[in-house]
Amino acid sequence: MNWIYFFEILGTVIFVISGVMTAIDDDFDVVGSIIIGIVTAVGGGTVRDVLIGQTPVGWMRDTSFLWAMLAGVILSYLFRKYITKLRRSMFFFDTMGIGLFTILGLQKTLNAGLEVPFAVLMGIVSAVFGGVIRDVLTNRVPLIFRKEIYATACLVGALVFLALEQFNTIRPINMGVSMLVVMIIRYLSVKNNWGLKL
Amino acid sequence: MNWIYFFEILGTVIFVISGVMTAIDDDFDVVGSIIIGIVTAVGGGTVRDVLIGQTPVGWMRDTSFLWAMLAGVILSYLFRKYITKLRRSMFFFDTMGIGLFTILGLQKTLNAGLEVPFAVLMGIVSAVFGGVIRDVLTNRVPLIFRKEIYATACLVGALVFLALEQFNTIRPINMGVSMLVVMIIRYLSVKNNWGLKL
Amino acid sequence: MNWIYFFEILGTVIFVISGVMTAIDDDFDVVGSIIIGIVTAVGGGTVRDVLIGQTPVGWMRDTSFLWAMLAGVILSYLFRKYITKLRRSMFFFDTMGIGLFTILGLQKTLNAGLEVPFAVLMGIVSAVFGGVIRDVLTNRVPLIFRKEIYATACLVGALVFLALEQFNTIRPINMGVSMLVVMIIRYLSVKNNWGLKL
Repeated sequence: MNWIYFFEILGTVIFVISGVMTAIDDDFDVVGSIIIGIVTAVGGGTVRDVLIGQTPVGWMRDTSFLWAMLAGVILSYLFRKYITKLRRSMFFFDTMGIGLFTILGLQKTLNAGLEVPFAVLMGIVSAVFGGVIRDVLTNRVPLIFRKEIYATACLVGALVFLALEQFNTIRPINMGVSMLVVMIIRYLSVKNNWGLKL
Repeated sequence: MNWIYFFEILGTVIFVISGVMTAIDDDFDVVGSIIIGIVTAVGGGTVRDVLIGQTPVGWMRDTSFLWAMLAGVILSYLFRKYITKLRRSMFFFDTMGIGLFTILGLQKTLNAGLEVPFAVLMGIVSAVFGGVIRDVLTNRVPLIFRKEIYATACLVGALVFLALEQFNTIRPINMGVSMLVVMIIRYLSVKNNWGLKL
Repeated sequence: MNWIYFFEILGTVIFVISGVMTAIDDDFDVVGSIIIGIVTAVGGGTVRDVLIGQTPVGWMRDTSFLWAMLAGVILSYLFRKYITKLRRSMFFFDTMGIGLFTILGLQKTLNAGLEVPFAVLMGIVSAVFGGVIRDVLTNRVPLIFRKEIYATACLVGALVFLALEQFNTIRPINMGVSMLVVMIIRYLSVKNNWGLKL
C-alpha cells in the first residue's frame, strides 16, 4: 500500500525535524542534532522491534528511511527560522505521524504473533518512545510523563482501530478513522490543556 | 513450578507499585505513572532478554504479567495513602522480588547457553535494571550507584545459589536459601547504612 | 587476526578505566563504578548488536572481555591517583579504541548483511554510544552532543576505510590508516577546540 509508505516516510521527516529543532534550541552541535533527530524519528519503532524480536530493526532494512532522515536534517538547517513559524503545520503532521505510527506498530506486533494487549502497548511505544529517548538524551524529564494526554490519544486510537477491524474489512478506512481519532484527541487536549491526574 | 510463577507475579505487582509511587511523588500524570510502573517491573528482565537474544521478551509472551501490572497500577491509586504507611511490608516484598529475579535471571541466562559469569551478571541486571531505567526516566542518578549495597546483595545471592547447586539437587531449597541471603544482606545494609566506597 | 583481538581487549580495558574514573569523580560507590565502567566499554557494541540482531551480544560470547573489564576496574582503583596524571596516554589509547571500534563495528554490520550506509552508522554507534549511555546514567547531557567533533572523526574514518577497501586488498593497512585518520582528526579537534555548529 503505497500511501502508507508515503506517510511513513513523511512522518519520519517530520519527526526528524522536530528532534533537530529541539537539539538546536538546546545549543547542540550538528552531529548531536542529527543523532537527536534520528533518535526521535526511529526510536519508538526501534524499541518495538527490539522487544518483539524483529531485528535488524525495520528502518535499517530500507535505505529510504536513511535518506528521509537526511532530508529532514537538511530541511531543518535550511529553513529553521521559517519552521518555527510553521508550528501549526508541524503540529498537524506530527500528530498525523503519531497516529500512523501507533496503528503500524500495532499491526507489526500482531504480525509478529504477539497477543492483542501487547500489540496495543507496542503501538503506543512506537508512537511515543522516540520522544521519550529524545528527552532522556537531552536530560529532560520526558514530556509525556507530565503534559498532554499524548499516549492516551494513541491508546484510544489503537482501540478504535481494533474495534473497526471487527466490523469493516476495508483497512484504509479503519486506519484513516483511527488516525483521525488520535489527531482529534490530541488537538482537543492541547487546546483545552487537558491532563489526567488522579 | 507453580510457587515460582506465583512469586514472579507477586514480585511484578510489588515492583509496579513501587514505580507508580515514585511517579506519583514526582507529580507525573496517570499515563506517565503507568509507564514508570511497567518499566520498573519489567525493565530488568527486558534488558536481560534483549541482551541474551530471547525475544520477544518474556513478559510479552504471557498476558498474566500484563494483568499483574494493571493490578499493581490500580492498587497503587486505590491505596496510595495506605501504601506509604506500609513501607516495611513493601520493603520486604521488594527485596524478596529482587532475590527471586536475580536467581530466575541467572537460570534463564544459563538456559540460553551463556557461560556462568555472564549468567551471574544477567541475574544482577534482571534484579536492578528496572530501577535504573526508572531513575533515568525520572531524571535521577540511579539509586544503586550511590546508596545501599543493592547489587552486591544480588551478586552474593547468585554466588550462593551456584555454590548450593553443586552440593544439593533440590532446587527449591537452593533458591529459597539464596533469596534469603539477598534479603538478609539488603536488610542489614539498609539498617546499618552500609556502603562500599574504596 | 590476533593483533585486532589484542587491540579490542586493550580498548575495552581503557574504556572501562575511563568509565570508572568518571564514576569515582561523581562519588559513586564500587558497584556503581563497575557498572559505569562496563557500560562505557561495551555499551556501543551492545546497542549495535541489538539493533542488527546479533544476539547474544558479542561480549557475552567471550569471557575474555569480562576479565578485561575486571582488569580495568582493578587497575582503576589501584592506580587512580596515577591515572589522572596519565591523561595524555589515556587520550591516546582512548582515541585508538574509538578508531578501532568504528571499523570493527562497520565490518560486523556489513557481515550481518546490512547496507553500507547503515554499516557506517553502526560503526559510529559502536564507538560513541558507550559514552552516551555513561553520560545518561550519570545524569549528564552526553558529551558528544556539545563538544569535540568526536562522532565526525568516526564518520570520516569509516568513509576512508570504505574508500581504501576499493583500492587495496590488504585489510590491516586499510584499518591502520583509517584508525590513524580518526586519531588525527580527534587530536586536532581537541587541540584546536574545533566544533561543528551551523
